[in-house]
Amino acid sequence: MKIAVLGGGSWGTAIAVLLSKKSNYVYIWDRNASVLEEIKYKRQNSKYLPDVIIPKNVDVRFDLEETIKSSDIIVVAVPSHAVRELCLKIKEFVNENQIFVSLTKGIEEKTFKRMSEILEEFFPNNNIAVLSGPSHAEEVSRDIPTAIVAASRDEDTALKVQDIFMTPNFRVYTNTDVVGVEIGGAVKNIIALAAGISDGLGFGDNTKAALMTRGIAEIARLGTALGANPMTFAGLSGIGDLIVTCTSMHSRNRRAGILIGKGKKVEEALSEIKMVVEGVNTTKSTYELSKKIGIEMPITEKLYNVLFNGKDAKEAVTELMQRDKKDEIQYSSYFVR
Amino acid sequence: MKIAVLGGGSWGTAIAVLLSKKSNYVYIWDRNASVLEEIKYKRQNSKYLPDVIIPKNVDVRFDLEETIKSSDIIVVAVPSHAVRELCLKIKEFVNENQIFVSLTKGIEEKTFKRMSEILEEFFPNNNIAVLSGPSHAEEVSRDIPTAIVAASRDEDTALKVQDIFMTPNFRVYTNTDVVGVEIGGAVKNIIALAAGISDGLGFGDNTKAALMTRGIAEIARLGTALGANPMTFAGLSGIGDLIVTCTSMHSRNRRAGILIGKGKKVEEALSEIKMVVEGVNTTKSTYELSKKIGIEMPITEKLYNVLFNGKDAKEAVTELMQRDKKDEIQYSSYFVR
Repeated sequence: MKIAVLGGGSWGTAIAVLLSKKSNYVYIWDRNASVLEEIKYKRQNSKYLPDVIIPKNVDVRFDLEETIKSSDIIVVAVPSHAVRELCLKIKEFVNENQIFVSLTKGIEEKTFKRMSEILEEFFPNNNIAVLSGPSHAEEVSRDIPTAIVAASRDEDTALKVQDIFMTPNFRVYTNTDVVGVEIGGAVKNIIALAAGISDGLGFGDNTKAALMTRGIAEIARLGTALGANPMTFAGLSGIGDLIVTCTSMHSRNRRAGILIGKGKKVEEALSEIKMVVEGVNTTKSTYELSKKIGIEMPITEKLYNVLFNGKDAKEAVTELMQRDKKDEIQYSSYFVR
Repeated sequence: MKIAVLGGGSWGTAIAVLLSKKSNYVYIWDRNASVLEEIKYKRQNSKYLPDVIIPKNVDVRFDLEETIKSSDIIVVAVPSHAVRELCLKIKEFVNENQIFVSLTKGIEEKTFKRMSEILEEFFPNNNIAVLSGPSHAEEVSRDIPTAIVAASRDEDTALKVQDIFMTPNFRVYTNTDVVGVEIGGAVKNIIALAAGISDGLGFGDNTKAALMTRGIAEIARLGTALGANPMTFAGLSGIGDLIVTCTSMHSRNRRAGILIGKGKKVEEALSEIKMVVEGVNTTKSTYELSKKIGIEMPITEKLYNVLFNGKDAKEAVTELMQRDKKDEIQYSSYFVR
């Protein structure tokens, strides 16, 4: 298999390293030539995946056209705000036999499209899969046991992607619920920001667990309204990914939240993380989407006000914890809007 | 309200402290007089809840008969293996107007009864509630924001218990699914032991998140087979409690697992924790119950073999991660047996 990985961030690089250990021909492209040069000549990616030696059989490509034209599988690992621009650039080079695998998590501003929907808009005749689940790049590149989901509406595509990516320590499960898998992957970053804020404010493990429980209910409410299978949110790309993103120090979204909770301004916190914090844009698009379709998402709403309207973070978390007393099934149900 | 708390462990003491801050008359009893003497004369419980000053209006009772006879609410906070014996002792002093609130988590060996079922066996005409959710005693006693579930088959009892326990920082939600709330509270200790073992072995956050995702599916499979509402496992007493128990250093079950993962013998690990590690007995009873009613519980089964048959811990976790590749909905579904 000839596999192009577009995007040399943490996750793109980790996946290229993983795939290169199997009998694939893997090459990586990034719009930033200096990232590629470091990979090519120093076999490392010091900004995005430090301490990992990138094997020699991860090839480097500087030319996007050539990269696309020579590949069977196109792995999209650029930040969510760059996916549409990338599609425009590669549009004329793609053929219908190529399979897309999206690693990007987010909901596009204004259009409210998931990443696979943007790909579909440009490549309606190609098979598309998404890969999502509890899988910090730092751990995957160190071959730490990880389980993840490959989702595609086309079951054969999901099975093919499962075969391509699976290793003894990288277990891939298939799912045909693309909506659920993508909504879980994107919206969990909002909850991780909020969980980080709770940690940064000095609240406890009890507080964060309550927030996360409310969080998965909120994610699932949005997802099921958009047509997802509610069971997906009980799986790896739902609570699994939520757990790892809200509790691990590998999570940039959580780390940004901790800084905000400790009193840093939002801009300061984001610039200190140095990489894209997907949860910020996702909060804006998800908040607007939830208002448009009338889904109650209290954590997303409070976070939106903290990030974009200068609301006090402590007040926001306290208000979330002190809503009216309720019946629990009503309170956490996936189906109550 | 006159409230008797039976059991001066961490959770019993923390709940007595919490209730004493409201306008209740609260007294605590324990079979160990030295625990009571320390509370009475030093206003502390150094073994079970260090660093917390116990308010003077938590009264201390040495006489069990008097304790029971003078109370409206009887809070049961003794270890699971002591609940039956306690019921025998208090049987003749209980009147039918008293409400039981169980804080104990476990499944009785041989009978496979939940704690509220043991209470029901002795007190069939009393109203019984259980309190469960992500609520480490150390944090509750420090007034850290916490959310929890009060479950009772009788909705009025659940509402009454909600009123009695609720404070601005201790949010109580009601549920009528006693089976689901108790199974979640008991079986999560098994998964926390396994999660601790994974941490102790040096596996990653990805690995633990996958294990926890599989864990809640396994808990829910057992629970629904016993008549629980599957939605309960998506709530505070399901994933909420699982998250806090598997990720917090306050969890004794997780800490015991870490020691086992680091190579300590099971007995050594348990004696180092110094308090009851409920997950050990629960693993035995749950394993036997799952075999009896034919529910697949792979994590419970592996852990049973580690704890009781000398199976190698690393081999157990590796085997769990490397089962056949599968469809995710099938794999994590609450309903697949």
